Amino acid sequence: MACRSRLAPVLKRVAIPSLRRSVAVINPLVSATRCISSTAPRRFRKSSPRCAGFTTDSYPEIKRDERFAQITNEHVDYFKQLLGKDSAVIDGVTGAAAEDEIEPFNLDWMRKYKGHCKLVLKPGSTEEVSKILKYCNENMLAVVPQGGNTGLVGGSVPVFDEIVVSTSRMNQIRFFDEVTGVLVADAGVVLEVADQFLAEKGYIFPLDLGAKGSCHIGGNVSTNAGGLRLLRYGSLHGTVLGVEAVLPDGTILNDLSRLRKNNTGYDLKQLFIGAEGTIGMITAVSVHCPQRSKAVNVAFLGVESYDKLLQAFREAKTQLGEILSAFELMDSQSQNIYHKVKGNTRPLDGEHPFYCLIETSGSNSEHDSAKLESFLEDLMTKEIVSDGVMAQDETQFKSLWSQREGITETLGHWGGVYKYDVSIPIKEMYQLVEDTRKRLEDAGLKDGTEESPVVDVVGYGHMGDCNLHLNIAVRRYDKKVEEALEPFVYEWISKRNGSISAEHGLGIAKKKYIGYSRNETTVGLMKQIKNLYDPVSAYSFLLPH
Amino acid sequence: MACRSRLAPVLKRVAIPSLRRSVAVINPLVSATRCISSTAPRRFRKSSPRCAGFTTDSYPEIKRDERFAQITNEHVDYFKQLLGKDSAVIDGVTGAAAEDEIEPFNLDWMRKYKGHCKLVLKPGSTEEVSKILKYCNENMLAVVPQGGNTGLVGGSVPVFDEIVVSTSRMNQIRFFDEVTGVLVADAGVVLEVADQFLAEKGYIFPLDLGAKGSCHIGGNVSTNAGGLRLLRYGSLHGTVLGVEAVLPDGTILNDLSRLRKNNTGYDLKQLFIGAEGTIGMITAVSVHCPQRSKAVNVAFLGVESYDKLLQAFREAKTQLGEILSAFELMDSQSQNIYHKVKGNTRPLDGEHPFYCLIETSGSNSEHDSAKLESFLEDLMTKEIVSDGVMAQDETQFKSLWSQREGITETLGHWGGVYKYDVSIPIKEMYQLVEDTRKRLEDAGLKDGTEESPVVDVVGYGHMGDCNLHLNIAVRRYDKKVEEALEPFVYEWISKRNGSISAEHGLGIAKKKYIGYSRNETTVGLMKQIKNLYDPVSAYSFLLPH
Repeated sequence: MACRSRLAPVLKRVAIPSLRRSVAVINPLVSATRCISSTAPRRFRKSSPRCAGFTTDSYPEIKRDERFAQITNEHVDYFKQLLGKDSAVIDGVTGAAAEDEIEPFNLDWMRKYKGHCKLVLKPGSTEEVSKILKYCNENMLAVVPQGGNTGLVGGSVPVFDEIVVSTSRMNQIRFFDEVTGVLVADAGVVLEVADQFLAEKGYIFPLDLGAKGSCHIGGNVSTNAGGLRLLRYGSLHGTVLGVEAVLPDGTILNDLSRLRKNNTGYDLKQLFIGAEGTIGMITAVSVHCPQRSKAVNVAFLGVESYDKLLQAFREAKTQLGEILSAFELMDSQSQNIYHKVKGNTRPLDGEHPFYCLIETSGSNSEHDSAKLESFLEDLMTKEIVSDGVMAQDETQFKSLWSQREGITETLGHWGGVYKYDVSIPIKEMYQLVEDTRKRLEDAGLKDGTEESPVVDVVGYGHMGDCNLHLNIAVRRYDKKVEEALEPFVYEWISKRNGSISAEHGLGIAKKKYIGYSRNETTVGLMKQIKNLYDPVSAYSFLLPH
Repeated sequence: MACRSRLAPVLKRVAIPSLRRSVAVINPLVSATRCISSTAPRRFRKSSPRCAGFTTDSYPEIKRDERFAQITNEHVDYFKQLLGKDSAVIDGVTGAAAEDEIEPFNLDWMRKYKGHCKLVLKPGSTEEVSKILKYCNENMLAVVPQGGNTGLVGGSVPVFDEIVVSTSRMNQIRFFDEVTGVLVADAGVVLEVADQFLAEKGYIFPLDLGAKGSCHIGGNVSTNAGGLRLLRYGSLHGTVLGVEAVLPDGTILNDLSRLRKNNTGYDLKQLFIGAEGTIGMITAVSVHCPQRSKAVNVAFLGVESYDKLLQAFREAKTQLGEILSAFELMDSQSQNIYHKVKGNTRPLDGEHPFYCLIETSGSNSEHDSAKLESFLEDLMTKEIVSDGVMAQDETQFKSLWSQREGITETLGHWGGVYKYDVSIPIKEMYQLVEDTRKRLEDAGLKDGTEESPVVDVVGYGHMGDCNLHLNIAVRRYDKKVEEALEPFVYEWISKRNGSISAEHGLGIAKKKYIGYSRNETTVGLMKQIKNLYDPVSAYSFLLPH
């Protein structure tokens, strides 16, 4: 069996008998950091050509609520006195701080949304957050809570002159129980820091995503982030045991339970998971962390059709069962772009209409490898997959994952990307990509030439969670493309009872489209909740009101 | 190696080399029904000596809210017309139904709580539930939603003359997706029926409990039931994807999402999970069901101290990892009572201060057995456990499980049981049992004689979830025992930030004790929610108001 330089093609039909010798098990402590360097978002890039200017320009229909006060020097003095040290207040109001210092808080990492904020506060404790919010509430000052500012829908940056309340100085791990795996930590702890802390104890944070090097766990919980481990460890609604949050009026909700079971009344913390900071600011979380797997394996497969991909997923669930930790989908278009931009060697010979990345995590490397090999042999025998490789060392492990995780970065190569993060019933999931591609071709917006605005329409995502990332790589942002995409995409999803935001949230980007995924009654009940916690709208307006 | 008649002592030190030959894998489709016959609660027993009479007698401090109307013949006529058929209305108001027919709905299965209900409605659809609640709301008629009536805290039966709205006729499975495992079903589907349906498809309901033969899945979700599978599959807050509920004013909240990810606004359904029917009646649920394991093994071990039990649990998490599906604790007192009442042969020689039952579930029986054997060998070598057996066939599997599941039933043998279902930080968990035992001994209420009111104080439960069942078996209910127990037990738990109700809920039994597990702010916020959904208190009063 000939080996190529980067990845050994262990799954060629002829190679099956030798599979057992070519398996490598990756140290999970190393592999867990795989995505940091390649895909962690940079906080901001100066003079990026992609910056769309102020959000107020791109969303002219959103008007500042004039009931909110303008920030005065007196307000700034109060905050400086409260927080006690200069570094906790970035003050552009009196001109003490330059615009450059404020920009990282005004601008999201994609440089798509930019606010006019002039004051950033960095409280060091829950009590300080409480005093800030109480004061803002009483003085009609609008605020935006901000974690690592890695959100993708403009929910973490101001639009007008809202005060940014940053969790960056609240970054302590408060408690960890080595028997139960319960972690209690400040909202501002960076996800990767939490995960590294847990790795030393033999545990893992039940959430993993590309931005882990920057994002804060409080922001993760506020956004109800999904990410790469949801298939295995479930959603944050199940793994978050407790939340400490400050309500708009300054009330501290201390619900930092360390217990897996506590049936004493309504589970209020659930409201704050995924509320995007609109009804309170999360200041700490308590999380049930699973045992870290000793063995992690990964395979990368080529598949001839979406139907076969569905079969492969069903078989993976049956045959890999409890060790299956990721089943990621990539179409050929996404891989073509990735390789065009990166110039890398492809892991498989030739092109396949679909690819999937399958990861297993378990407690016994020998058992896991045996299961994965037997599964792959079975898929080959049944002709469900056409070709495949399995990582044999850490480099290959990272390389295979980068085929999936590197897509996001490379799509922007030509100028811009229209991004849709959606959930669709699994059987119809990929059809959205095909229908969108056809629609753009029919409209003459994608004709293969260098002049056409659309480079390609690609689909990838977390197949295991029915979570598709539909991305349209473009040479330039173009009104005609936008008009072809919206509301088409949302209507398509709505007809199939899908979700227009699977894991990114609504933010400002999707706020007005909530009706495509939630009926009028439900939206009305959400408004009730918003009104209950924030009757004077002291917060920004991330949800319908 | 000598084998006893029922269970082979495969874990005797001398027997370790032969372990591999003595392993049996149980058919999960069979084993899943293990608890039905032995511990499924009987709905009611006539002339039981344990019946405490009407709840109004045992809780004289609870007064009927006189704002609620008395049920008239006119009301009954409306319901008869609405529901269209006689069998859907059990009418004791006009005397059409005898008391006997109503009693099963008035009385909880423990015969501890008994109401004065005279009207039972059995709607056949969500629309009918909506019309019933709207009418009741407008006419100030109090209602109590009821599922299988297997609750343990008096939350599912009326106290006064509330109308029972039963889910028993809403028992259809609406949808199942064989690729994703998403099940949508009416609230009144019996848990066991749902699980058997899923078993045929290779899936499992992510919840298992003793009452599965009677309880309804809508009631399970309303109570946020925990049970035996929480350790493996997590809480219902994570596995329930959607809820359809009717609010007190008749509004239908249709949030029956079939998607694992849907971040479009507040996750309102979470409020209904564990709300015990106080803010709405769940009429259907959507659940993400895991793959059913092909192999299930069980071991039963004797341990010399609670510290060693903690070590065993930590090792089980590390070594069994992804296949660990139960880690149940039993103290010697609970086992002594079980064997005294049942007269069974004990699975292990002699007595041990503690016992644990460890279950594994996985996709490959050979791998699972190897892991479990290696784990048990390691525990024996490290002297963490003293003795143990492993089930070798289905009979032994059931027999070992009955050591744990049969406790509840046998405790009542002498007359009555004081039951506490609590969560406590794991290191201190068992201390509560010892402190309670000492307290009752010191008070002269447990002296080993036949005259003493207390037979014994036992502890057992779901160690993996820090969920202890503290039970006091008594010869008679005695005010002195009650005074020694309460508020002592609640104060003890409160000091350690535990929960006074881990999985049973508050109901009427623990309503007034909520302050021991939730602070004033949190309770205040819960009242806000109750008031938001049920401002005219058209519902019963299961939560503080």
